[in-house]
Amino acid sequence: MEGLLFVLSGPSGVGKNTVLKKVLAKRTDLTYSISATTRPPRGQEVDGVDYYFLSKEQFWAECQNNGFLEWAEIYGHYYGTPKKQVLALIQKGQHVILDVDIQGAAQIRQNYANAVLIFLHPPSITELTRRLRERKTEDEDAIKKRLAYLEKELAAVTSYDYVVVNDQLEEACRRVEAIINAEEVKVTRGYWKRFLNP
Amino acid sequence: MEGLLFVLSGPSGVGKNTVLKKVLAKRTDLTYSISATTRPPRGQEVDGVDYYFLSKEQFWAECQNNGFLEWAEIYGHYYGTPKKQVLALIQKGQHVILDVDIQGAAQIRQNYANAVLIFLHPPSITELTRRLRERKTEDEDAIKKRLAYLEKELAAVTSYDYVVVNDQLEEACRRVEAIINAEEVKVTRGYWKRFLNP
Repeated sequence: MEGLLFVLSGPSGVGKNTVLKKVLAKRTDLTYSISATTRPPRGQEVDGVDYYFLSKEQFWAECQNNGFLEWAEIYGHYYGTPKKQVLALIQKGQHVILDVDIQGAAQIRQNYANAVLIFLHPPSITELTRRLRERKTEDEDAIKKRLAYLEKELAAVTSYDYVVVNDQLEEACRRVEAIINAEEVKVTRGYWKRFLNP
Repeated sequence: MEGLLFVLSGPSGVGKNTVLKKVLAKRTDLTYSISATTRPPRGQEVDGVDYYFLSKEQFWAECQNNGFLEWAEIYGHYYGTPKKQVLALIQKGQHVILDVDIQGAAQIRQNYANAVLIFLHPPSITELTRRLRERKTEDEDAIKKRLAYLEKELAAVTSYDYVVVNDQLEEACRRVEAIINAEEVKVTRGYWKRFLNP
C-alpha cells in the first residue's frame, strides 16, 4: 500500500518549520523530504539535513535530467524536490511531507494528483509582520519583499486542499495531524484497508 | 458560517452507537440528529432521545410534506431524518451527525452534496458475527438477515468519503474526530476562516 504525499506551504514567518518539526516528531511514518537549493546556507543550516545545497550548474543538470518533482525560483534562488527519493519512500508505504512554495505546490499537483496540499495561514497580516520582524534573520528590505509576495501567496490558497490557521501552535499541529489521519482513511485511497484484520 | 453535516453508517454490531456517543461527548459543537422511525422501541430506547417513534400514518404524512432529508425502509420499518431540525442547526454554525443506513446515506449525498459520509467498517466479517451474537438483542434469524445484508453494505463503501475500521474503539473514535477536524479546514468550505483573527 502506497504512502501519501503531503505538501505544507505558507508565507515566511508563519511558523511552518516549527509545525513541521512538531508533526514529524509525533509521526514516525512521516518523512520530511529534503529540498535541493542554490541559495547559500542560513544560520545553523546543514547540507543534507536542512537542504541539499547545490551550485546553479548542479541544479540545472538535475533539472534537465527530469530529477525534480517540482522546482521553483524564489528571490533569485532555485529550489527543487528530488523525485527519486520521494517516490521510493511512498512506494515503501511511508508518508512524505514537502515544504514547498505556492509555485512548487502547483507543480506537485500536476505531477502527483493524489498529493494533499496544506496551506499554513497566518492569523492576520499584522501578526505575520510582527513575527517576521521578531525573527531578525533578515533586513527590512527582505521583509518588505516577503510581505509583497504575501498577497500572491494568500490568493493561491484556493488551489490547496486545506487551510490551517497558525494562531495557536499546538492547535495548528493538531490540525495538520488530523488531516493526515483523515486522508489515510479516504475511500478513494486503498490505504484504509491496512486497518482490516486479515 | 454554516456547520458541517456528517453521516455515520455501518453494519449492525460494528459499534456505531458507542463510537457516536464517545465522539459526541468530546465535541460540544457536534449535534446528533435524532431519526424518526416506525419501528417499536428496543430495550431502554426513549422517544425523542434515541428516536422519534412514529406510526406509519404519521411517518407518511411527514414524508408527503417533504419533511425528511432522507428516509428508508429497513427490515419492514421506516426511518427518516427530519429536515427542518438539521438545516436549522447547520445554519446556526453547528455540526450535525446522522446515523443512517446505506440507502439513507445515498439520499443525503443527493440532497446535501457537501455532506461528509463516513462508513464504520468491521475489522473482519468473523469479528462482526461474533459481536452480533454476543449482543444477544436478537434471535439467530434476525442475525442471519443482518449478515445477508452485510454484503450489500460493504459493497456500498465506495460511495462514502471515508472508511474507518473499528478494530480498537479509541482509535476509531480518534479517526472520526480527525475527519471532523480535517473537514473543518477544507478550502472548499469557508469554515476555516473562522480561525482567522479579525
